[in-house]
Amino acid sequence: MIDQIRSGYFTEEDSAEVVTSRNSAAKDERLKQVMDSVTRHLHAVVKEVEPTQDEWMQAIKFLTETGHKCDDWRQEFILLSDVLGVSMLVDAINNRKTGGATETTVLGPFHSEDSPNMEMGSNICLDGKGEPLVVHGVVKTVDGLPIENARLDVWQANDEGFYDMQQKGIQPEFNLRGVFQTEDTGDYWFSGVKPKYYGIPDDGPVGAMLDKLGRDPNRPAHLHFIVTADGFEDITTHIFVPDDPYIHSDAVFGVKESLLADFIKVDDPARASELNVGNPFWEVTFDFTMAPKR
Amino acid sequence: MIDQIRSGYFTEEDSAEVVTSRNSAAKDERLKQVMDSVTRHLHAVVKEVEPTQDEWMQAIKFLTETGHKCDDWRQEFILLSDVLGVSMLVDAINNRKTGGATETTVLGPFHSEDSPNMEMGSNICLDGKGEPLVVHGVVKTVDGLPIENARLDVWQANDEGFYDMQQKGIQPEFNLRGVFQTEDTGDYWFSGVKPKYYGIPDDGPVGAMLDKLGRDPNRPAHLHFIVTADGFEDITTHIFVPDDPYIHSDAVFGVKESLLADFIKVDDPARASELNVGNPFWEVTFDFTMAPKR
Repeated sequence: MIDQIRSGYFTEEDSAEVVTSRNSAAKDERLKQVMDSVTRHLHAVVKEVEPTQDEWMQAIKFLTETGHKCDDWRQEFILLSDVLGVSMLVDAINNRKTGGATETTVLGPFHSEDSPNMEMGSNICLDGKGEPLVVHGVVKTVDGLPIENARLDVWQANDEGFYDMQQKGIQPEFNLRGVFQTEDTGDYWFSGVKPKYYGIPDDGPVGAMLDKLGRDPNRPAHLHFIVTADGFEDITTHIFVPDDPYIHSDAVFGVKESLLADFIKVDDPARASELNVGNPFWEVTFDFTMAPKR
Repeated sequence: MIDQIRSGYFTEEDSAEVVTSRNSAAKDERLKQVMDSVTRHLHAVVKEVEPTQDEWMQAIKFLTETGHKCDDWRQEFILLSDVLGVSMLVDAINNRKTGGATETTVLGPFHSEDSPNMEMGSNICLDGKGEPLVVHGVVKTVDGLPIENARLDVWQANDEGFYDMQQKGIQPEFNLRGVFQTEDTGDYWFSGVKPKYYGIPDDGPVGAMLDKLGRDPNRPAHLHFIVTADGFEDITTHIFVPDDPYIHSDAVFGVKESLLADFIKVDDPARASELNVGNPFWEVTFDFTMAPKR
């Protein structure tokens, strides 16, 4: 093997070692560590499945098409990472010890960096479609103290299961997105729409792959949150509708028991009018608990 | 674990099993087999390297940029497969038993499906640059019988190490490419240019990765061949210049001992004139041996 590596020539037996031996003068030690692992496992996959040259070319084409599908409004590689459970695994590894904080889940491909800041209590549903939903709760420390100036970045699909960026020209721009800042009591509240389950985008290579694998493309209904506050660990998470038909078969494996929220139907015209939503409406109470920055 | 899989919820411990359990109703059994292996090894990489969320996003961006770099004239994912030794491994697995046939190596990203058919003996060097090279030999069976109507698809970089598709507008279209058909003696001959080592394209994400890994991007000088004939296994290969400074450090691991060819310098004005090349010139004799179709 040493001779093989010294000659630089490749053999099937020592394939991964021949390749990784070239990284000995790496400028970036971490990248070397990552690529050593990637190379060993890539070679192990090839040795396990023994692809034909045609199958190898199909894999090249799949990756190329996945790249070509990506633009400012679509991230097909995040979708691929999501459906293969890689995103959830990275999330799990980075959030092992929550120390009592709210659990995290996948970011997903539909976050926008440009969501508008909104007054507390605003309605993020700009087109009035669907069943009204009021969401409220407290952002607090693991000791139960309120956190002031916590930032809640919220986004959700509409009542048909589409995000604004999937329906440009149909939904208003920045529909069902908003950024809220808690007051000194740590309270937050806003209204939106009762979310619905939806199929992940299936018009790209990832959708075609799921179909061939006989996999259900649906995600159970949820709202997305990124909660941040000075001195605390960020929380990227969802809250889920617990009686959703797809709650046990989320296409991206995002569901955690602790993220199931109670969605309660309220028929109370006086409260609806006070909250400035239609009657009847849905109400969810969900508190976010933040751990000190590690 | 069974409960976990039944609930569909994800845990770090059972991550790969939760994901692969979703493929039980696959329509494409082979894809299921491939994706089961890919998923297990992808999760193993994540568990070994424990990427931060930022590093995960860097990987997403790397793959996206690699996809965006691909077009009709550039195949960055093939380049990635090449520099990670995956292409050579797939080649090795698919060509274990050559049965005495000429050994194979990587296709590389610069093959064209549209190379012109040429008269035997033609010069594929359309711009007359570099030191003339005459290549000839016989295409034969493993029993030494000549093969008529074998098709040789030939391509090479120019004397500066660039393929025509890398220098559109600088090199003539289809420079240093051609398809030849053997006559009843199995003989082939053509002229081209003495090839030079070259660095693989480094203006994309793969080049940037190699640089951070401290890897040499150079490939030793070579000519590409795809040899095909009815009833015989295809041969995708190179012939290499054996005294090239990079012969032991090919960036894509393509060199095999049996593919080193003798490049002999000839100073013989009469033969040069007969062969219709300049004097002095380089001469290579290389026979291709084909195994019956499996």
